[in-house]
Amino acid sequence: MTDSLRADGRTADQLRTVTIERGWSAHAEGSALVSFGGTKVLCTASFTNGVPRWLTGKGKGWVTAEYAMLPRATNSRNDRESIKGKVGGRTHEISRLIGRALRAVVDTKALGENTIVIDCDVLQADGGTRTAAITGAYVALADAIEWGRSQKFIAQRATPLVDSVSAVSVGIIDGTPMLDLAYVEDVRAETDMNVVVTGRGLFVEVQGTAEGAPFDKRELDALLELGVNGCAELRDIQAATLA
Amino acid sequence: MTDSLRADGRTADQLRTVTIERGWSAHAEGSALVSFGGTKVLCTASFTNGVPRWLTGKGKGWVTAEYAMLPRATNSRNDRESIKGKVGGRTHEISRLIGRALRAVVDTKALGENTIVIDCDVLQADGGTRTAAITGAYVALADAIEWGRSQKFIAQRATPLVDSVSAVSVGIIDGTPMLDLAYVEDVRAETDMNVVVTGRGLFVEVQGTAEGAPFDKRELDALLELGVNGCAELRDIQAATLA
Amino acid sequence: MTDSLRADGRTADQLRTVTIERGWSAHAEGSALVSFGGTKVLCTASFTNGVPRWLTGKGKGWVTAEYAMLPRATNSRNDRESIKGKVGGRTHEISRLIGRALRAVVDTKALGENTIVIDCDVLQADGGTRTAAITGAYVALADAIEWGRSQKFIAQRATPLVDSVSAVSVGIIDGTPMLDLAYVEDVRAETDMNVVVTGRGLFVEVQGTAEGAPFDKRELDALLELGVNGCAELRDIQAATLA
Amino acid sequence: MTDSLRADGRTADQLRTVTIERGWSAHAEGSALVSFGGTKVLCTASFTNGVPRWLTGKGKGWVTAEYAMLPRATNSRNDRESIKGKVGGRTHEISRLIGRALRAVVDTKALGENTIVIDCDVLQADGGTRTAAITGAYVALADAIEWGRSQKFIAQRATPLVDSVSAVSVGIIDGTPMLDLAYVEDVRAETDMNVVVTGRGLFVEVQGTAEGAPFDKRELDALLELGVNGCAELRDIQAATLA
Amino acid sequence: MTDSLRADGRTADQLRTVTIERGWSAHAEGSALVSFGGTKVLCTASFTNGVPRWLTGKGKGWVTAEYAMLPRATNSRNDRESIKGKVGGRTHEISRLIGRALRAVVDTKALGENTIVIDCDVLQADGGTRTAAITGAYVALADAIEWGRSQKFIAQRATPLVDSVSAVSVGIIDGTPMLDLAYVEDVRAETDMNVVVTGRGLFVEVQGTAEGAPFDKRELDALLELGVNGCAELRDIQAATLA
Amino acid sequence: MTDSLRADGRTADQLRTVTIERGWSAHAEGSALVSFGGTKVLCTASFTNGVPRWLTGKGKGWVTAEYAMLPRATNSRNDRESIKGKVGGRTHEISRLIGRALRAVVDTKALGENTIVIDCDVLQADGGTRTAAITGAYVALADAIEWGRSQKFIAQRATPLVDSVSAVSVGIIDGTPMLDLAYVEDVRAETDMNVVVTGRGLFVEVQGTAEGAPFDKRELDALLELGVNGCAELRDIQAATLA
Repeated sequence: MTDSLRADGRTADQLRTVTIERGWSAHAEGSALVSFGGTKVLCTASFTNGVPRWLTGKGKGWVTAEYAMLPRATNSRNDRESIKGKVGGRTHEISRLIGRALRAVVDTKALGENTIVIDCDVLQADGGTRTAAITGAYVALADAIEWGRSQKFIAQRATPLVDSVSAVSVGIIDGTPMLDLAYVEDVRAETDMNVVVTGRGLFVEVQGTAEGAPFDKRELDALLELGVNGCAELRDIQAATLA
Repeated sequence: MTDSLRADGRTADQLRTVTIERGWSAHAEGSALVSFGGTKVLCTASFTNGVPRWLTGKGKGWVTAEYAMLPRATNSRNDRESIKGKVGGRTHEISRLIGRALRAVVDTKALGENTIVIDCDVLQADGGTRTAAITGAYVALADAIEWGRSQKFIAQRATPLVDSVSAVSVGIIDGTPMLDLAYVEDVRAETDMNVVVTGRGLFVEVQGTAEGAPFDKRELDALLELGVNGCAELRDIQAATLA
Repeated sequence: MTDSLRADGRTADQLRTVTIERGWSAHAEGSALVSFGGTKVLCTASFTNGVPRWLTGKGKGWVTAEYAMLPRATNSRNDRESIKGKVGGRTHEISRLIGRALRAVVDTKALGENTIVIDCDVLQADGGTRTAAITGAYVALADAIEWGRSQKFIAQRATPLVDSVSAVSVGIIDGTPMLDLAYVEDVRAETDMNVVVTGRGLFVEVQGTAEGAPFDKRELDALLELGVNGCAELRDIQAATLA
Repeated sequence: MTDSLRADGRTADQLRTVTIERGWSAHAEGSALVSFGGTKVLCTASFTNGVPRWLTGKGKGWVTAEYAMLPRATNSRNDRESIKGKVGGRTHEISRLIGRALRAVVDTKALGENTIVIDCDVLQADGGTRTAAITGAYVALADAIEWGRSQKFIAQRATPLVDSVSAVSVGIIDGTPMLDLAYVEDVRAETDMNVVVTGRGLFVEVQGTAEGAPFDKRELDALLELGVNGCAELRDIQAATLA
Repeated sequence: MTDSLRADGRTADQLRTVTIERGWSAHAEGSALVSFGGTKVLCTASFTNGVPRWLTGKGKGWVTAEYAMLPRATNSRNDRESIKGKVGGRTHEISRLIGRALRAVVDTKALGENTIVIDCDVLQADGGTRTAAITGAYVALADAIEWGRSQKFIAQRATPLVDSVSAVSVGIIDGTPMLDLAYVEDVRAETDMNVVVTGRGLFVEVQGTAEGAPFDKRELDALLELGVNGCAELRDIQAATLA
Repeated sequence: MTDSLRADGRTADQLRTVTIERGWSAHAEGSALVSFGGTKVLCTASFTNGVPRWLTGKGKGWVTAEYAMLPRATNSRNDRESIKGKVGGRTHEISRLIGRALRAVVDTKALGENTIVIDCDVLQADGGTRTAAITGAYVALADAIEWGRSQKFIAQRATPLVDSVSAVSVGIIDGTPMLDLAYVEDVRAETDMNVVVTGRGLFVEVQGTAEGAPFDKRELDALLELGVNGCAELRDIQAATLA
């Protein structure tokens, strides 16, 4: 691990300032405004008693997610997907990732026939929006589940959440593995990886892509170690927020 | 004017607490997070040098707006318009209203061949989202114009903004005209009106609709008076924010 | 009120020639081909016993409207919205306006669980298409309600129509308030207003927009007076048609 | 040929009452409101100097058509294709047929680099809408071409129209070949055929479909003869209209 | 009939090499990979017990078809219709044609309340894709019906197929009527016709279009004779495949 | 590595029978029909001289991919995305993956201003469709590049392909890591991973997802080793095909 400073003064293995503002929304059953440095994502969890038709009568719940970005969340304005009339490939892919990450720590039997939709809307983007979204979405999800319990939609003894989950990006820049890439770093990374890790330190997702040169096993291992350690820090921040 | 208290303790002619957080977005050329009580709208102004093709070479600029609502801005979740693949009628109508309101105080010749797009995204809704959007959008617009001037896209001596503009809702509830309706009031209103007024007190838009019984000229006059006074207060808040 | 002549020889407070051809369509339960000068709108009312699912079992009916324009109704051809794959903002806005205007004079309890859809298709456009549409749609609606009564879908003693409704445009041109603007006038108007008024002379909608300079209260009052008088004339024409 | 009477009193080889109201639209360069009995189609021809990009510089013009039906043109209301967001298969197919039929009598070289779009909007449907549309569209096309000549977009000596074109439906009902089917006949027909024939009596399109039992060569010949004769009558009506 | 050789050495009345590979798909209830020379179409029949809602309880089955082309089935790549977000007019028209052709030989009462969807995907195109699709779809349909019988969804004694059906293109090139046009021939044809004929030699569809000069009755008759003979050959190939 | 037999008799580290039929399409500049057991994907490469507008003048080429599945490629029929009017999330995600995988071995400077679009259409699906698509797409890409060289669109000495690329799925079933999962295995896998590896054995993509229990580092390493070895076998099959 190197101790060379980054553009924002961080060391290679240092997270940006992470804050999670719990209960930001007055309406949602669970919500969190999460910041990873300049990246700000509003996560709201909507709880509905009942499940989609294809799941009815199986005694299981459903958790899903939708990710989107405000038009001017980024440095230049993007057209709205509602105006374009279709959702882009990147948006779809990230929505699916967030949903899988959350479901990995949910016992859908214990959730009962309830549906939770987590909306992750990026208000400002500076790299790592999908990992910030997963990290904030977990907090919103946890609160929505407690709301469901308070309303008796979920049994008092049921534990729908079997673990916590957080995510962080890692990448190799100028040959150095680095944690939690800001946008200016992300565009320069040779390899870009997102790791989704449970509170107990197990992998839920590992998505590594060679943006420049392909990478070898040794680089992969270095990135995974950085990511696991970063997720452990995020887990502690989540726990403190929910305490 | 009556002094009977409303659900939130306001008098009939009293605005909710209005705050305008200027420069909320790190990326946009102008931005404002405006709150009218529980209604929170993020307004970002994106400045582009140049105009759409149909306006090229006419020496005039263009100002337009897009309004949208996050899925869980309201008490129950609405499907995303991007997922539905089309923008609803209400969304279109409000986007068009905001654009007209802003253009009414812009001298497009003085703006030069520049385009400003104002995005108004409702993060939380509690009535009056369109009027809050117009009020906040004006602040974002003013800052974007100053940015354009600082970048020499707008001439130093040009005054693209010929006046300020703000908006407020008024309505008749149980026979009493009231200012700045919250959601619980809005659904009960017999008549619902939005007035858009310039800093000098002239009308830009008057949109009154009988939701219940049709209304007469006397009621219309009472509503207009309330609205004009409310907009004058909003004008002062805008001016203080921009000072 | 001025007596200066307009391009078509009218005085400022004079309607264009208005005709309503009742029962134009062989298939619809109510229909009217309405002309305001060169503006021709075919209004058909489709009566269905039953209501949309979200209204079922509430003992109330539903009235809605859809507005559209043939591609070559205007001076130059517009692409079809069906080909573009989406309905434009202006179309949505006008459809919603017509629906609200009609519902304002309908007692949905008295209508019973029946649905009436009014289609307003502009065959030829020369300004004031939305106001002509509302005026004609009322006639089609009245006939559809009588058809429903004749078929016993509506109780004999029920009076679903509590009043009549008509609409007209007014505007300020070269400082003079004028009634029922033709297209060549509409594009020159500094202020453009549509008023929707019941047979008893009460307002259902007032939609005024400053296209050029913002307007003051005195101008607003002059426009409203012109509009109310114009609607009274239209009410008489509707009554004669339905007699 | 049988002389048995049909529901509307016609003989098997008799057209319904056909009228063509030329110049119905004040805006279009050519227009015709055509009626085949209860079927009424408004045909407007829009003339544009210039051609689509893919045809530019080839010295040839372009003629195309769009067919559509008002929602309540039929006995029960159909959803608008603009609302559904897509154009149905039947609509596409008929639009393409009308375009091909018209192009068959147009010398695109003589037309020069001009585009004519013919809109055929069915105001009321009672069988044979596509054949009425072709018959009326020819009249609108002829007038649009004369307009283009008067504006000098088409050379004085050029003859873009090399022939006239009309169309009619024929079908076999209870074993009897019949001309120009009304809706009640169309739904009962065992075989349904549309023939498009030039003024000189040559075939442009022959589209025969067995709706019930497949048909043999003798039946096909009987239908073709009926169709050719019907088109000759329509040609004469077109000529009288254009005289 | 001429004996002059064509580009590929065929006589005017000769089919290209036709092969039908039955049971190509491991999953579908019936399938066939059909080739007419360089045209290759994969036809799969999907059998579902039950019918669409609008047909429920009428004791009748439903057969429908969807036609599509891979993006690079042709000489230059076409954009995918899924990416464009809408199905083109030609695609719709051909899908409808195939469905009608198949339904013409199906006794839907004997089929019972079962639905068969035939997908015809053009893997490689060299003219005559719709006629190859019909010819192959019949084989897939026949196998799907036998599968339904084996599963007891269709009664043992029922004969849902009342005849076989095949199709071929014919056209006039340089004044000579020719059978089964390859792509290079199709683009040169003055008249283009598709005939759909049952095994017993009766017409289901006759679709003739003058691409260049309109055609007369004698030419039409020559084309029909060629088509009927070609379909008889195709019927024998289908029968051999299914034997 | 275990030697327990799988449903199809394979050992845990054994690929299914892999075949690559090069030049399957008569029209495409490069093509391959690739089979991984019952999974069959048709890959066609379309070469265009020139690049999309956003890349013009940068001296670089562009390689992209589109993945799709025929409606009845799977055990039950799926609705066409063209009919649904939008491309699903999974389709988008796989298209993007294939494109990234191919671009990882392309030197876009050496490719010059040329565009290659690879269409991967799944004709039959039995697990591993995306990995088969990448493996076949490489062969189609290699042939398209040679075609471009033969046409002088690519310089003789340029080597646009800097390496080969192949992909395979791996997963953990009942605790045992296994290579190249068939569909029946895929649905049972606790962890599912796709690895994309270059001919030299470097990683381009690693996408591992816990479908059931999250996985630890030791399991991840076992999966990666299986995947790297499987890709080496695929590389040899690609090389033999292209020899």
